[in-house]
Amino acid sequence: MSDLLPLFQPKSVALIGASSNSKKYGYWTAKSLVENKFEGDIYFVSRSGGELFGLPTYPDILEVPGEVDLAIIAIAPKFILSVMEQCVEKGVKSAIVVSTGFGETGPEGKELERKMLEIARKGNMRVQGPNCMGTYSAAKSMNASIIDLAPGPMSLVLQSGNFGIDINFNAKSRNLGYSCWATIGNQMDLRFHDFVEYVETDDETKVLLLYMEGLRVESEEDGRKFIEAAKRTAAKTPIAAIKIGRSAAGARAAASHTGSLAGSEKIFDAALKQAGIIRVDSPGQLLDVAEAFSKCKPANGKRIAVLTDGGGHGVMATDFAEKFNLEAPVLSDATQAKLQEILMPHCPIKNPVDLAGTPEADMWVFDRCLDVLLDDPDVDGVIIVGLYGGYADLSEEFRVLEMDVAKSMVKKISEANKPVVMQSIYQPQHPECLEYISENGVPVFGAVDAAVRTMGVLAGYSDLKKSLQEEAGEELPVMPSDRKEKAEAVLNAVKASGRTNLVETEARSVLRCYGLDIMEDYLATNADEAADFYKKIGGKVVMKIVSPDILHKTDAGGVALNIDSEDKARDAFEQLMKNGRRYKSDADIFGVMMTAMLPGGVECIIGSSHDNTFGPTVMFGLGGIFVEILKDVAFRVAPVNMPSCRSMIREIKGLGMLQGARGSKPCDLEALAETVCIISQMVNELRDIAEVDLNPVFALEKSLSIADARIVLHG
Amino acid sequence: MSDLLPLFQPKSVALIGASSNSKKYGYWTAKSLVENKFEGDIYFVSRSGGELFGLPTYPDILEVPGEVDLAIIAIAPKFILSVMEQCVEKGVKSAIVVSTGFGETGPEGKELERKMLEIARKGNMRVQGPNCMGTYSAAKSMNASIIDLAPGPMSLVLQSGNFGIDINFNAKSRNLGYSCWATIGNQMDLRFHDFVEYVETDDETKVLLLYMEGLRVESEEDGRKFIEAAKRTAAKTPIAAIKIGRSAAGARAAASHTGSLAGSEKIFDAALKQAGIIRVDSPGQLLDVAEAFSKCKPANGKRIAVLTDGGGHGVMATDFAEKFNLEAPVLSDATQAKLQEILMPHCPIKNPVDLAGTPEADMWVFDRCLDVLLDDPDVDGVIIVGLYGGYADLSEEFRVLEMDVAKSMVKKISEANKPVVMQSIYQPQHPECLEYISENGVPVFGAVDAAVRTMGVLAGYSDLKKSLQEEAGEELPVMPSDRKEKAEAVLNAVKASGRTNLVETEARSVLRCYGLDIMEDYLATNADEAADFYKKIGGKVVMKIVSPDILHKTDAGGVALNIDSEDKARDAFEQLMKNGRRYKSDADIFGVMMTAMLPGGVECIIGSSHDNTFGPTVMFGLGGIFVEILKDVAFRVAPVNMPSCRSMIREIKGLGMLQGARGSKPCDLEALAETVCIISQMVNELRDIAEVDLNPVFALEKSLSIADARIVLHG
Repeated sequence: MSDLLPLFQPKSVALIGASSNSKKYGYWTAKSLVENKFEGDIYFVSRSGGELFGLPTYPDILEVPGEVDLAIIAIAPKFILSVMEQCVEKGVKSAIVVSTGFGETGPEGKELERKMLEIARKGNMRVQGPNCMGTYSAAKSMNASIIDLAPGPMSLVLQSGNFGIDINFNAKSRNLGYSCWATIGNQMDLRFHDFVEYVETDDETKVLLLYMEGLRVESEEDGRKFIEAAKRTAAKTPIAAIKIGRSAAGARAAASHTGSLAGSEKIFDAALKQAGIIRVDSPGQLLDVAEAFSKCKPANGKRIAVLTDGGGHGVMATDFAEKFNLEAPVLSDATQAKLQEILMPHCPIKNPVDLAGTPEADMWVFDRCLDVLLDDPDVDGVIIVGLYGGYADLSEEFRVLEMDVAKSMVKKISEANKPVVMQSIYQPQHPECLEYISENGVPVFGAVDAAVRTMGVLAGYSDLKKSLQEEAGEELPVMPSDRKEKAEAVLNAVKASGRTNLVETEARSVLRCYGLDIMEDYLATNADEAADFYKKIGGKVVMKIVSPDILHKTDAGGVALNIDSEDKARDAFEQLMKNGRRYKSDADIFGVMMTAMLPGGVECIIGSSHDNTFGPTVMFGLGGIFVEILKDVAFRVAPVNMPSCRSMIREIKGLGMLQGARGSKPCDLEALAETVCIISQMVNELRDIAEVDLNPVFALEKSLSIADARIVLHG
Repeated sequence: MSDLLPLFQPKSVALIGASSNSKKYGYWTAKSLVENKFEGDIYFVSRSGGELFGLPTYPDILEVPGEVDLAIIAIAPKFILSVMEQCVEKGVKSAIVVSTGFGETGPEGKELERKMLEIARKGNMRVQGPNCMGTYSAAKSMNASIIDLAPGPMSLVLQSGNFGIDINFNAKSRNLGYSCWATIGNQMDLRFHDFVEYVETDDETKVLLLYMEGLRVESEEDGRKFIEAAKRTAAKTPIAAIKIGRSAAGARAAASHTGSLAGSEKIFDAALKQAGIIRVDSPGQLLDVAEAFSKCKPANGKRIAVLTDGGGHGVMATDFAEKFNLEAPVLSDATQAKLQEILMPHCPIKNPVDLAGTPEADMWVFDRCLDVLLDDPDVDGVIIVGLYGGYADLSEEFRVLEMDVAKSMVKKISEANKPVVMQSIYQPQHPECLEYISENGVPVFGAVDAAVRTMGVLAGYSDLKKSLQEEAGEELPVMPSDRKEKAEAVLNAVKASGRTNLVETEARSVLRCYGLDIMEDYLATNADEAADFYKKIGGKVVMKIVSPDILHKTDAGGVALNIDSEDKARDAFEQLMKNGRRYKSDADIFGVMMTAMLPGGVECIIGSSHDNTFGPTVMFGLGGIFVEILKDVAFRVAPVNMPSCRSMIREIKGLGMLQGARGSKPCDLEALAETVCIISQMVNELRDIAEVDLNPVFALEKSLSIADARIVLHG
C-alpha cells in the first residue's frame, strides 16, 4: 500500500490551527474542506474553542474522538514540534504542514525541519511541506488547499503555489480539473518521486503534470528514485513537466528563489527524457498537453492529415507539422479518389484537404471528408483547422447545421481509433458547436501552432512508451564477473598513494577490468626497456609520459608519435623524460607508456561526470570540432542499457559522420554503444569515480580504439 | 506621388456592382462604405437602378457626375473587360477588383487577367486584386471591405482573406486597429512591394504586418523590388511577416493553394532577413509584435531586468530571455543597493527582482522597484511578470491601491526612455488596472513566453536598423572596370560552342576577370607541354582533366595530386587522358589543367544558384562535413556589399573553425568576405550564369585558395 493513501484518500482529516478569523489560512482551509464536501470526518483543532462551520472544535489533536488519517497543520513554527509529537502520539498517518517559516528562511529553519522529520519518522507519519499550499483529492472530494479546485482527469504536483494559481486559472477556462493536486513546498519528507509513484496507482489520472524548480536531494539516490518512479508511471500515464532554470541566468535565479542546489541543466534535461517525461516550456503548453491526453486517444504514428476550410491555415498547419515532429504525407490514391467524389475539382486534396469554400454550399463536406480520413489506415491522426464555429454567425440555418455536423463528427471520432484535434479562429468566442466538440473528446485550440504541437505530443507518446519498454530491458554487454573487485584494487592503490588522478596506465587497467578491449600498453622505466617493448609491439608506436603530476601530456611535450624503430624508441624515451622534468621539475614520473599506433577513425568522446542531483552520468559525443564548436553530445544518468546507448548515439547531430560520410565506410556503432554502456555500468558500480574521459576514441569500421583515457576520483 | 494615393486616400469612390441583395458582395461593401462614414463622395453603380442606403445609383460609371479616384469592382468576370474600359474612359485612377473567377481558376482566367492589365496600363490605372477582400484606410475612414475594421497604428497587407478575419478577430480583443489594410488577391498589378512602398510614406503606421504565401513574380526584378522596398520602409517602420510554406510539405501545399511557383524556402527566409523583416510563425505572434511596436519605445539593447511577485514566473522569464536573444545580467551593485533599501532581506534582487510577498504589505514596492530599474543605465528594458492585477480580488482596499500603483507606474514608464512589457496570470480576465496599463503604453500578456519574446523583438529592432544602415552602404572590394566585357567574352565563346558548362580553365578565367586572386593555371594538351609547365610551376602540382563532358573529375580518375617532377607530370598526363577516354569514350577532352598545389586550410564553399523568386543568390558555408551533414550555410540574394558578406560569415554555426579552433591560427575572414562579395556582384552582372560552385575554397591564415571552380550557364 502506498504511504500516500492516507494523504489522498483519508477517512478522516484534522485541521490543526482551524480559525474563525477570515484573514487566516486556518479559516480558508476549513472553509475549503467544508464547502468542497469532504467525504469523511472533519475535525477542527483550535485553541480558541467554539464551533466552526457548524462543527465542534477540539483544543488539541489528542482530544479528537476518532482516528485521524491526515492532519493539516496551519500553526506558527514555534509550536510545530509539540504538535507533531501529539500527532505521532495520536497515531496520525500523514500530515500536511502548510505554515511557512521553515527551511526556506535559513539554517535555523532547516534545523527545525530536521527535528520535525525525526519525529515523523519515529511515528511512521509521512509529511507534505512545510511551506506549501496543501492538497486536493477528487477521490474523497477533499480540498485541503485555499484554491478553488475541481475534479477532473489531470493530476498536478507543484513546487510553487503561484503556478498552482496560474495553471488552475487557465484549467478552469478549459473545464479541466484534477484527480490529485499537491504543492510539495520544501520537500522535507515527501518529494516528487513519492507523488509520481502514487499517481501510478491512481486510475482516474489521465495525465500527470509536474512543475519543478529542482529536486531536493540529500543523496544521489533521490535523483535516481525520481527517474525510476517516473519511468514506471510514464509507461502507463503520460507525464508532462515544466522545469525552470533552463538558462544560465535562469538557473542562477532559480537557485536564489528555491535555495536548491542547481545541478546541470543538460543532465536534468537528459534525465527527464530518460524518465519518459514530456518537457514543455510554459503553463499554456502544459495545459495543451493535459487537455490532449485527457480527451484524445494516443496516435499510433506521426502521419497526420490536415482538413481545412482556410487554405492558409491548412498550409500553416502543414508547416508546423514538420516543426513538431509530425509528417503530413501526400494522401494515398484511394483516399484522394474518395475525396474527389466529395469535393469540387478546385479543392486541393493531397494533404491538406482544403474544402475551399464548399462548406457554404454544403456543410456536410466536413463530416464526409473527416470520415474518409479517419478510415485511411495511413493516417495516424487528423487536425482540423480554419473557420469552423464561425458559420453560425452567417445565418440561423448555418447555426443548426454547424451543430448537427459537429455531433456527427464527434460520433465518428469517438468510434475511430485515432486522435483528432481542432483549431478554429472562433475558439476564443466559445461558440456552442465548438464547446460541444471540446466536451466530447476533441481539444479545440485558438492557434494553429498549439493544435499541431499538441498532436505532435500525442504522436510522440507512442514512441516514448516504446522506448521506455525497450530501455526497461536488461540488455548489457558481457562484462567479467570479477570486474568490480579487480577495479577497486586499482582504485584503492591510487587512493592509498594519496592521489585522485589515475595515470593513463592505471585508467587503462580499470577499463580492462570491465572487459573493454583496450590495446596492450607497456610502461618503460628506462631506455633499454623502451627498446625492448618496441620489439614486442613493432610497427608504429605511440609513447606518452606517465605521471600523476602531468595531466596535459601534449603541453608538456610528453607525447611521441610514429616511433618505428628500437633506436627511435630509446631516443624518444630520453626526450620525453627530459621534457617532463623540464615541464615540472618535481614531477613524480612513473615512466613512459608505449602502445601500438592504430589507424585513426572518426574521433569520438566517451565520458562520465558527477551531477549534484543525479550522481554519475555518461556522455557520448563526436570529438574534435564537433564537441568544441558544436557541443554535439548526448547525456544519460548512469547506468544505462544497450538500447539507451544506441539511442544516445542516434541523438548526435553529426551522426552522419559515423554512418559513412564522404564516401568512407560506416563505423561500428554497436561497439561504440557497448563502450558507452560499459562505462555507465562502471561509474555506477565504482562510486569513487568522479570523472571519466576517453578522448579521443576512434570509431573504426570494425570495433574502436581508445587512444587516451583519464579517470579522476572524488577528492 | 505614390500610385497608391488614390487607393488609400481617394476623394471619391465608385462601387461598381452595388446591390440591394443582402446576400451579395455588392451589398456588403456598400454597407461598409456607408456605415464607416467614408470621408468623400460615394457613387453606387448598379444596373438595377433605384436608391441604396439613401444614395442614388448610376447605370454605369460613365454616368457618374464627379471624378472618380477609386473604383471598387464587384461584378462577374464576363463583364470585367468592358467595365474596365469604361473606368479608363472615365479617368478612374485606381481600382479594386474583389470578384473571383480569374487567374486562380486556370489558364483562361490568367488570359483574362492579361487583358485586364493591358486595359489598366493603357489608362494608367493601378489595380488591386482580383480575387481579394478589399481595402481599408483610416486616413479617409474608408472601409472598402466586408470585414469590420477599426482605425489604429497597424498596417496589414494580406494574401488571404481568412487570415484577415483571423487577425482582425484577435486584434479587436486587443483594441488594435489599422491605418492601411489591404488584401492583395492575385496580385495581377499591385504587388507586395507596392504596398510596402506606400506604407513608408504613411506616418500613422507604427508597424507594418504582412501575411505572405508567395510573391507573384514575372521577372526576378519583382523579388528584388520587394527586398528594396522593405529595406527602405523597415529602416523607418518595423515590418513583421508570416510567410507560409516553410516546410517541404507546407511548400507543396502552398503551391497547390495559391498556384504560385514556390522558390526555395531557405532563400525566402534569407531574403526576409536581408530586407529587415521580422519573421514570425503565427497570427498570435504577429499581433504580439504589432502591439509592442504600437505601444512601446524600442529598446536600445538586449539587457533586461525582470520584476516579479512570483518567484517561479521570474525564473521562467529569465529562462525565456536567453531563448529570445535577450540577456538578464546580474544588476549593478548600485541598483542592488537601492533595491535593498526598498525590499525585505529575503527578496532576491540580483535579477529577477522578486518582491516575494512584500506587495501584500505594501503595494508601492512595485512602483519603487520599477523606478530604480528604469533609472539604471545598464538596463535596456523591464519585464514585469506574475500576479499583478489579481490583488483586487482580495479586498476593495487592494483594488484601489492596484489602480493607483498602476497609474504611477504608467507615468514613470511614459517618461522613461525604455520599453516595459508585462505578463499577468490575470490578463485573460481583463481586470481594470491591467486594462489601464495596456491602454497607456505597456502591452500586457497572459503568457510569460509571449511577453519575453516580444521584448526580444523590441530589442532586436535596434540591431536590425543598425545592420540595415550598414548594409545600405556601398562598400565593395576593388574589381577591374573592364570585368564585365571580358567575362562576357568568355561566356559568349562557351555559348557559341553550344555548351552551358564551363570547363575549369574557363571558370577560372571568368573569376580572374573579376579580380579574384586565383592561382595561375596551365592547360597542357600533350605530355611534353605538361613537363614544360611543371618546370614553370615547380614544387607540388595538381593535374586535372579538362572536358565539358566530364563533370565529376574524381569519379573519372581525372585528378592527380602531388606531382613533383617533370617525368611524373608526363606520366600523369597520359594516365589522366587515358582514364578520361575510358570513362567516356566520346568525351571532348581539352587537355589537362595544371596548378600549384597549395597547403590546405579550412575547407569552405562559396557559390551561387538561381532562385525562381529572387534570381541570382550567393552562398557561403564551411565545406566537407559541415555542409554535408550540418547544412551549415548562409544565403543572400545577390548582389551584397561587404558588411552583408561579413555578417554571412558570422552566421555560420561552425564560425569557430575559421577563428582558430583547436590551436590553429585564425583564417583571413576579410578575404573570404571579399570573395563572397565579388561572386555576388559577378552573378548580378552576368545574368547568363545559373550556378557557381567554388568548392573547396581553402581559407588560409592570409588570403585563401580556390581549389576548384565550376560555372554553369542558363540552358
